[in-house]
Amino acid sequence: MLEKRTPIPVDEAVRRVSYFQKQGETEWVALEESLHRFLAEDVTADHHVPAFDRSPYDGFAVRACDTAEASRENPVRFEVIDHIGAGAVSEKELGPFQAVRIMTGAQIPEGADAVVMIELTQPFEENGKAFMSLKRRFQPGDNISKTGEDAQKGSVLLRKGTRVTPGVSALLATFGYASVPVVRKPVVGIIATGTELLNVSDPLEPGKIRNSNASMVYAQVIEAGGSPLYLGKISDDLDKSFAAIKEAMKKVDFLITTGGVSVGDFDFLPAIYEKLGADVLFNKVAMRPGSVTTVAHANDMLLFGLSGNPSACYVGFELFVKPMIQTWLFNEKPHSICAEAVLTKDFPKPNPFTRFVRAFVYHQEGKLLATPVGLDKSSSVTSLAEANAFIILPGGTRGYESGRTVQVLLIREENGSEWPWSVLSRSSKL
Amino acid sequence: MLEKRTPIPVDEAVRRVSYFQKQGETEWVALEESLHRFLAEDVTADHHVPAFDRSPYDGFAVRACDTAEASRENPVRFEVIDHIGAGAVSEKELGPFQAVRIMTGAQIPEGADAVVMIELTQPFEENGKAFMSLKRRFQPGDNISKTGEDAQKGSVLLRKGTRVTPGVSALLATFGYASVPVVRKPVVGIIATGTELLNVSDPLEPGKIRNSNASMVYAQVIEAGGSPLYLGKISDDLDKSFAAIKEAMKKVDFLITTGGVSVGDFDFLPAIYEKLGADVLFNKVAMRPGSVTTVAHANDMLLFGLSGNPSACYVGFELFVKPMIQTWLFNEKPHSICAEAVLTKDFPKPNPFTRFVRAFVYHQEGKLLATPVGLDKSSSVTSLAEANAFIILPGGTRGYESGRTVQVLLIREENGSEWPWSVLSRSSKL
Repeated sequence: MLEKRTPIPVDEAVRRVSYFQKQGETEWVALEESLHRFLAEDVTADHHVPAFDRSPYDGFAVRACDTAEASRENPVRFEVIDHIGAGAVSEKELGPFQAVRIMTGAQIPEGADAVVMIELTQPFEENGKAFMSLKRRFQPGDNISKTGEDAQKGSVLLRKGTRVTPGVSALLATFGYASVPVVRKPVVGIIATGTELLNVSDPLEPGKIRNSNASMVYAQVIEAGGSPLYLGKISDDLDKSFAAIKEAMKKVDFLITTGGVSVGDFDFLPAIYEKLGADVLFNKVAMRPGSVTTVAHANDMLLFGLSGNPSACYVGFELFVKPMIQTWLFNEKPHSICAEAVLTKDFPKPNPFTRFVRAFVYHQEGKLLATPVGLDKSSSVTSLAEANAFIILPGGTRGYESGRTVQVLLIREENGSEWPWSVLSRSSKL
Repeated sequence: MLEKRTPIPVDEAVRRVSYFQKQGETEWVALEESLHRFLAEDVTADHHVPAFDRSPYDGFAVRACDTAEASRENPVRFEVIDHIGAGAVSEKELGPFQAVRIMTGAQIPEGADAVVMIELTQPFEENGKAFMSLKRRFQPGDNISKTGEDAQKGSVLLRKGTRVTPGVSALLATFGYASVPVVRKPVVGIIATGTELLNVSDPLEPGKIRNSNASMVYAQVIEAGGSPLYLGKISDDLDKSFAAIKEAMKKVDFLITTGGVSVGDFDFLPAIYEKLGADVLFNKVAMRPGSVTTVAHANDMLLFGLSGNPSACYVGFELFVKPMIQTWLFNEKPHSICAEAVLTKDFPKPNPFTRFVRAFVYHQEGKLLATPVGLDKSSSVTSLAEANAFIILPGGTRGYESGRTVQVLLIREENGSEWPWSVLSRSSKL
């Protein structure tokens, strides 16, 4: 019999899933393995940076007071009493009109309070001794990087939940994190359903298509920060399918199925959820594509039933799965961010439900522009390869003209959002 | 003796490096290993998509002509003669007022030319036979995804040089690429110089700092698409250093050194380049930070001499190394893209040279905003962790006020640019 389903709004659906959020445990990995992992602890400075007053330039450390009379007409001469490279520390203390030759990054010697860049000096020798002269005044503190000016000991430099980027790697190295506390990646199981599915390596057969969703979701899980585990295709048999899902749930932190969630007669997932005693959070969302997306909760685990249509599957992952993976990884901004962009083409279709239009967004003359890509059919696999955003067209609208400002969900941007969905309540007032 | 160096403009420096660009060879990797790799060949469709006329919905396949009289007052009845799931093909041909129950994605049976969504039908049984009735007219072609409407057989779907994303993975799977031709990653050697450098795992010592550049550049190489090979710290001894560099060049496609390129007395790189008989493309760039960045070419290999200052090192990598890695990977847009953004803070410093200011850019009310992060000193390691862009302040300018439009280099954006540097010639006219 045909089941009646009640669609719920997108933001409500996201909220229901968020209710079951979980966070991962800490594990330690080598610094060189930590790129794109998420920090499990705050990183604090174990020392001042710089740890000592140091020279930002190659030049000479001097006492500023000795330069007071220096001018173009009156060069002042200094005896060069030492010569230190970065990493070395001079054991000498400067007296009047003495200077120490100093390299970038080296510690300022005792007595010195300014550094003169080498380009501003004239070195010379006299009676086997080294000298230099200069023609400008300097103030105490000139050209000295002060202890702690970059970071104070004890200060929090990075919050837990921060994703490791090259800049973060530099910071971790500076503070001695040869090993880095990161959040264990959640294992995300992927099961494909659909008798029409061939393996990627299979030749085409009449009526069938190759399984593209599994490969796509596998890649999406990696990008979101999870560890994907492909568990193959589910059988046609309800009992066998049920057993496969039960077994899968022992191995994973989240479980994704693709396909099988429609009201079609070959869609097993609803029956499996029932047999599991799962709490079905929703089985219809007021959106296109992906309206049949279903999320259930059983044995303390979220079960994501994504649509079998590639674009619907993609949208379902971005909206519901990615934020849960990111929350697991302590990211406090787990959702994609929403921005305003200018539509570059008409989009004449009316939208009874919230519509996510695959789009390419780009910068031009200070504005963000959004161009819908490919056909707007949920089966259109080519357009997913080009899309870096979804245009969000709120439900109850009649279509949009080129030049109009629209909201775009920047699904491939590194920085996230706490809650982008207030845009839906705002937009529905249009 | 103090060597005199002539600074060259940034765009000229980038151009000189580009002259020695190389491209990598093809290697085949499993589809599930191909994420973020770059395609070495164009991907063409080996079949139409869809490969057959198919149903985008669950419903009934009918002959549109049989619905001509259907209306709310006059439901038309159809005998349901078959029932096919996705992947199955009906062997029956539809006659007048016959219908086939059909699932999403299934092939349209012979004789049918429209699909009626299941919600619009009323199924019933009579004398043990299945029927359905409907109350609306349909046109031939209604709700049919036509053969080839998504992609035509033989068409180029992805250009070589395309980076594999989840959407690209889906496309590759659809066309049977269980194995994917990608460009071999260039091996990028990293050697650190500087007697002041401690290993990341070492305790701090007076006058010394931990080596953060190697970890940072290691991560930058991975993000740019290369395969980093850390070769340790170079010795203090010129002959040993020379031997180490010669040895390193046998193992890598590009070689990066950090530090040692200044005019300081402990900076060996200039002497090593000379001993190698290297062609020094430049050893001074009219920019801050990173003015001492040096690039040389020897034995058909680019040698990148990046500054020892973390931010200068970072900038040097983004400007000179990344584009060469990306070009190796066939990316036709190997540079970071440049966009316009609104400055949110005053930046009062005059800029005798082009200045790259570490910044965080973000979207707000349809605009891109740029906030300088941290101190603008080249030693400031904390600010690199926050930066996702560089504000480009052209040379010869007096400083910038909040609210002014500036150019930003979006160093962390996935999409690149062919040549962002025309902005420098434009901006210098300000």
